[in-house]
Amino acid sequence: MYRLYLAGPDVFLPEPLAAGKAKKALCALYGFEGVYPLDAVLDLDGLAGPQAAQRIALANEAAMRSCHAAIANMTPFRGPGMDGGTAYEMGFMRALGRPVFGYTTHPDLFADRTRQFCAGPVRQRQDGYFEDVDGLLIEDFGLADNLMMAIAANESGIPIAVGDGPLRDTGPFEDCLRMAQRVLSGKPFTNA
Amino acid sequence: MYRLYLAGPDVFLPEPLAAGKAKKALCALYGFEGVYPLDAVLDLDGLAGPQAAQRIALANEAAMRSCHAAIANMTPFRGPGMDGGTAYEMGFMRALGRPVFGYTTHPDLFADRTRQFCAGPVRQRQDGYFEDVDGLLIEDFGLADNLMMAIAANESGIPIAVGDGPLRDTGPFEDCLRMAQRVLSGKPFTNA
Repeated sequence: MYRLYLAGPDVFLPEPLAAGKAKKALCALYGFEGVYPLDAVLDLDGLAGPQAAQRIALANEAAMRSCHAAIANMTPFRGPGMDGGTAYEMGFMRALGRPVFGYTTHPDLFADRTRQFCAGPVRQRQDGYFEDVDGLLIEDFGLADNLMMAIAANESGIPIAVGDGPLRDTGPFEDCLRMAQRVLSGKPFTNA
Repeated sequence: MYRLYLAGPDVFLPEPLAAGKAKKALCALYGFEGVYPLDAVLDLDGLAGPQAAQRIALANEAAMRSCHAAIANMTPFRGPGMDGGTAYEMGFMRALGRPVFGYTTHPDLFADRTRQFCAGPVRQRQDGYFEDVDGLLIEDFGLADNLMMAIAANESGIPIAVGDGPLRDTGPFEDCLRMAQRVLSGKPFTNA
């Protein structure tokens, strides 16, 4: 059975284990095994913050290596862009050559969200692009997030699934599961 | 000569080519070849946004594969966390097994920056952690950013270099170059 790594800021939700359980149940419905970052049972007792973090991060990396593909929740998180840890995991899986399916529950494009986020007036340059009050470019390629993550998701074979709801909305997540069925069914099964 | 991929939001600075040139000159000073995302000369004429983005993203991925290690500018960018594209690139290089040295020009820890960023009152839970007004956890492991990127950098052999200046400050970048000398000098040279 194909294993899907479930990347996303869902681990920060008020009920992170329930959120993972719901996603794993949906994976099973589509014939996949969902692998959630909080699945690993780690003994963090008595560890200082950085040591606990190391154990978690290395466990997540091992979980990713054990998966055939990933589904990334690219919904904006505390700022105009997606959660950084999820972006990291998209790059990790992509470097391993494994498909990364992406979804977001926010319908606006990255450039529009960034313009709204920036404090102070944004300014349009002669080349048509916008910059913020510090002169920093506002990336604008008509994509849902920074081009590295957006293109990684698109290169999975099917564009980012876009919804319009809260972070925990599983509608576009299910779109990704259908994508995963189409893309992975064309591949012979091998152990990750 | 070891090639270092120069990841960071420096590409969004008002003079992105000059910023890259300065970093590449510092790399040369320490015996490295710096590879900057904007080095690739790409013909983007007449391409729609997503197609231009695809060409850039794939060129960046090829550039990363050609490098022995990376130095990532983890300075917070439009929000409490680092630039998402840079986080992606850290994950990418880490999955390839290449050292990722990290620096930030902001001295505060991720948890403190996130607490300051969150609109509305944050609340301390019984387990000691803080959550924002939506009940979303504020990650707190005493690190400079989300644990995936912070640990990836620490696993390079030497902890994240921390400065106190603007995004373009090259002081902690030079600290990373010294780290890279120490870490890479112990390895036999091979083509990336």
